[in-house]
Order: sequence, then structure tokens, then C-alpha cells
Amino acid sequence: MTQRIYVGVDLGGTSIKVGLCDEQGKLIQTYEGPTGTEHGPDFVLDRIVEYVHRIVDESPYEWEQVAGIGAGIAGFMDIPTGFVELSPNLGWRNVAVKKTLEEKLGKTVKIDNDANVAALGEAWGGAGRGIPNLVCYTLGTGVGGGIIINGKIYQGFNGMAGELGHMSVVPDIEAIACNCGQSGCLETVSSATGIVRMANDAKERGDRTSLALIEKITAKDVFDAAKSGDEVAVRIVNRAAYYIGKSMAAVAVTVNPQRFIIGGGVSKAGEILFNPIRETFRKLTPERAYTGVEIVPATLGNDAGVVGAAGLNLH
Amino acid sequence: MTQRIYVGVDLGGTSIKVGLCDEQGKLIQTYEGPTGTEHGPDFVLDRIVEYVHRIVDESPYEWEQVAGIGAGIAGFMDIPTGFVELSPNLGWRNVAVKKTLEEKLGKTVKIDNDANVAALGEAWGGAGRGIPNLVCYTLGTGVGGGIIINGKIYQGFNGMAGELGHMSVVPDIEAIACNCGQSGCLETVSSATGIVRMANDAKERGDRTSLALIEKITAKDVFDAAKSGDEVAVRIVNRAAYYIGKSMAAVAVTVNPQRFIIGGGVSKAGEILFNPIRETFRKLTPERAYTGVEIVPATLGNDAGVVGAAGLNLH
Repeated sequence: MTQRIYVGVDLGGTSIKVGLCDEQGKLIQTYEGPTGTEHGPDFVLDRIVEYVHRIVDESPYEWEQVAGIGAGIAGFMDIPTGFVELSPNLGWRNVAVKKTLEEKLGKTVKIDNDANVAALGEAWGGAGRGIPNLVCYTLGTGVGGGIIINGKIYQGFNGMAGELGHMSVVPDIEAIACNCGQSGCLETVSSATGIVRMANDAKERGDRTSLALIEKITAKDVFDAAKSGDEVAVRIVNRAAYYIGKSMAAVAVTVNPQRFIIGGGVSKAGEILFNPIRETFRKLTPERAYTGVEIVPATLGNDAGVVGAAGLNLH
Repeated sequence: MTQRIYVGVDLGGTSIKVGLCDEQGKLIQTYEGPTGTEHGPDFVLDRIVEYVHRIVDESPYEWEQVAGIGAGIAGFMDIPTGFVELSPNLGWRNVAVKKTLEEKLGKTVKIDNDANVAALGEAWGGAGRGIPNLVCYTLGTGVGGGIIINGKIYQGFNGMAGELGHMSVVPDIEAIACNCGQSGCLETVSSATGIVRMANDAKERGDRTSLALIEKITAKDVFDAAKSGDEVAVRIVNRAAYYIGKSMAAVAVTVNPQRFIIGGGVSKAGEILFNPIRETFRKLTPERAYTGVEIVPATLGNDAGVVGAAGLNLH
């Protein structure tokens, strides 16, 4: 056998994306097709099998070179058995993903949740290349996280390691309820949802802001307004950034990563978001735990999921 | 060769304690002798060599059965090379501990800092026995911590993993400066020093408390007063406990340990401290990250250091 290749599957509610990576985490090619969620788990798993075969057939590699297949799925799952307990966006309950795919593909299959897999993707083939210990944040509708220790996703006792969106960071007096049942979670202020909520609150309060003219405010609107100097928008962005930096300070004295990587839609805001994050992080972290530690944007974008899924079979 | 044994050295400013452990982390015997810090590093290292030989000679084991020797030292050090960069309480700067001891003893020697070593001791032979992933807090003059992942101390990028005493947990408005250069660190409120400071503040403010009658208040005085129902003391204890619980909530969504172990002098206060810690932890942690997670007292007391030092050679 010559070079090994790895196949990653990013299983979304609308489309399934598959990707082929080499041993260095370089993404060679991708293929995307519909999920067909409405036809149920068996149909979806058959689509995965079809797309995986298709991408390998269309590549310069042989099926024999496939060293493993991985899949990232949103939901709760038992990683060792590869059993999806609940995936709300797929409408799945108790689906034996690993077992079924291994039978149909004749290859080792590993699964993990989407946030962890995106973190591994960035660690292996993106902004964390060559760094063994790092922590990823994914800022989207919610706030996801992933802890990479010695190049591997760290799960913790029951898979809750890296659930950074649910770190309690907002003081009680300003805390609002989170979907997780607690209040004051990072996700309530630093996700796109949290940013939009703060903007709507400002609008309702009658704050002087250009955002008041927008009917349906998005997180991007808030960043654009902040870049134009809108003070209310700047305050909202700084608040979202402050709590990310504060949570990173707590992470730094817990696992002391060499690098923090921030991905997800919100991270596209750029320096207007990254600068106050870095400032807060330095302010709240002991010198030895921030010296040499970088906070950088993710580089793989939407490909992080397939690259990380492919990487599940590295170890 | 029959059973392997491990020797641990707890190097303190006043005395050196050595201990002999079996492969299961059971402490078989200990020996303690003066450090002689005033005579300089060479003298101290010779004492270690002497005490290590003595404890093995006096045991039922042969020197050949010693599989490794470990030492826990307070200070900053480079773990892989076993080089102590700075140990304020020993007055050491740039001492090649590992190299010197290996030459004199003819055995593998590993060193680590005292808080990490105490955590490993509890993990291997104490309150964490059989639990691969756990987090230890040591509440003394300061607040130390240790992260145990897969049975090993986790160091992080530059040894700052588990520096939980320097997690920024106190809101800015109430934060006071910490020795580390930041402010609002856990250590400023939840160490013996922090508890005594809060008691002295209450006394100076003229709060109605039995502590006002004590000239030189200790942390034990505060706990005793709290147990007797002194409301000011109860408030101080609850505040110290609250911030430990809050920091544990942050740790839980970062490394999701199965168990938290609390040791050090302050932990002897018992349930009056542990109950509010557990309450805050549950209040600020998502259900999946606290379900099945225990917060328990350390069991090895002052022996945690020698047991953990012995355990440095396990992996």
C-alpha cells in the first residue's frame, strides 16, 4: 500500500459534505450532496455510503488506500460505540451510525460531534497545524468549543469537555437564561444570537444607533455598524468580545493551550472582534499563561468539518 | 526482579520527606529529615540521596526493585530536563536537580511542582484512585491546582495548566490585587490568606462578629466561628466557597473531570465549606457536566506529596 488517505463526512440537516485528506491533513477534494433527512436514517446512511464511494472513485486514489472514515454530527452521541442518541436537526434518536456504516463500507468508521470535529480539523490541517495543544471556539448561532490535547480531541468524563459556550461568565445581575437550563452562559452574549439580542434590546430601549433603522438585525449588521463607528454597536461587540476573552483566561489556567482558534460565522468580523478579545485575555490571565499564546482566526472555514472528520482516524 | 517500588521525595524548605510506594500507589513507609536549606543546593541534594538510600535500606525491598524516584518542589522548573529555574522557598536558582540526582542515585529521577505532585498523589493513591480524569484544588496559603488526564499530570503549553488559583473569578468591582500581577484571582478570596483578609476587613469595618475578639485571626478561627453560627464568618466562608464552585463550573465545561478533589489545610473545614461549593457548582454548570461528578475531600493529607512524587515514574 502506498499513501494512506482519510475520508471525512460532515453530516448536516440539508447537505452531506464529504472530503478526502492526505496524511498531513491537506484537503484534496470534496463532494457535496443532499441529505434527504425527510426519508429517515437508513436513507441518509445510504447517501453517505454512496458519496464516500463516489469521492474515492473520482479521485486518483484506490479504495484500498482509505485508512478510515470519520463523520461529524450535531447532537448527543456515545463516541466509542458511535451511537447517536439524539440529533435534533436530523430528527434522529438512537441510530447506530458507526456499526451501520462499517458494515456497508467495510472500513473503520468513527464519529464525533460537529464542534469537536471542526476543532480537530483546524488543529490538524488549519490554523493549528503543528500545535499539539490548542482550544477552538466556534462562534455561530451558539458558541461551540473543542479542546485538543496532544493532537486529539479531549472528551472528558462524559463528552462535555470543550462545551465552552456554557461557561458561566456573565455576573448574576446581568445574566439571562440559556437554552442549557443555566443562566449567564458565554453563548447568551457572544453567539450571533446573543449579539442580535443585545442589538434588539438597544433598539427597543430607544438607544441612538443606526441599527434602529434595520428591521431584522443580523450579527453582521452589528459588526458593520461598529466598523462605521456606531457607539452602541461598538459597545455590543466589545461586550461579546469581553466575555470570550474572559472565558479564555479561565481556559488558560486550566489547560494552558498554546493557541486559541476562533471560527464560525461571527469570527469573520475580524480585528474589531479579535482586538478586544486579545485585550481582555491579557488583562485577566497571569503573564506566564498568556506569554507566547496566540488568538487567531480559523482558516478552513466550512471545510473544518470534513477535515476534522477525516482526522478522527489518525489516532 | 519481583515487585517494583517507587520512591517519592517531598522537598520542603524545612524538611525533606521521602516515601516508598508499591505499584498500586500504596504508601508503605516514610522517612523525614531536615533539609538544611541554609547549606545550599549541593548539601540538600546530598541529603535527598542519603534519605532515599536510608528508606530503601530500612524497607523489606532491595535497591534493584526501585523503578524510579520522583521529587515535588515548590517553584518554577523545566519538567523534561528536571532543571529548577527558581524556588523562592529553597532560595534556589538554576539547579540541575534531575541530572545531579540521577548521577548520584543511578536511577531515573523525575521532578514536578508541588501542587501538581500532590494532585497526582491523590489521583493515584488517594481520593481519586481508579478515576482517570480529575481535577485537584489545594487550598492553603495560596490556591494550587492540578489537572489529571488519563492518570497523568497535564502540564499544558508551558506548565501553567492547573494554575486554578489564578483564574479570574471575582468581578472587577470587588477584585483585589493578586501576587501574580492580575486582580480578582480565586486565590485572593478562597485561600487561607484570602479568608483571613476578609475577616480582618470585617473586623476593621466594625462588623458584629465574634472574630473581633481575636487578635490574630486564622482561617480556622473563621471556620470555627462560622460553625458556631457567627453570621459574618458564615458570609466569609460562603464567599470563599462560592468562588471555588464558580471556578469548578468553568473547569467542568473545559476538561469535564469525573471528580474534583479538594485538599490543603483549608479543606479540613469540612461540610461547612464543601456544601456551598457543591451548591454553587450545580447552579453554574450545565446538567450534563455535573451529573455524576463528585466534589470530595483529599484523603492523603500531607502524604499526597510523597505519593505523587513516587507516581511521577509510572508513565
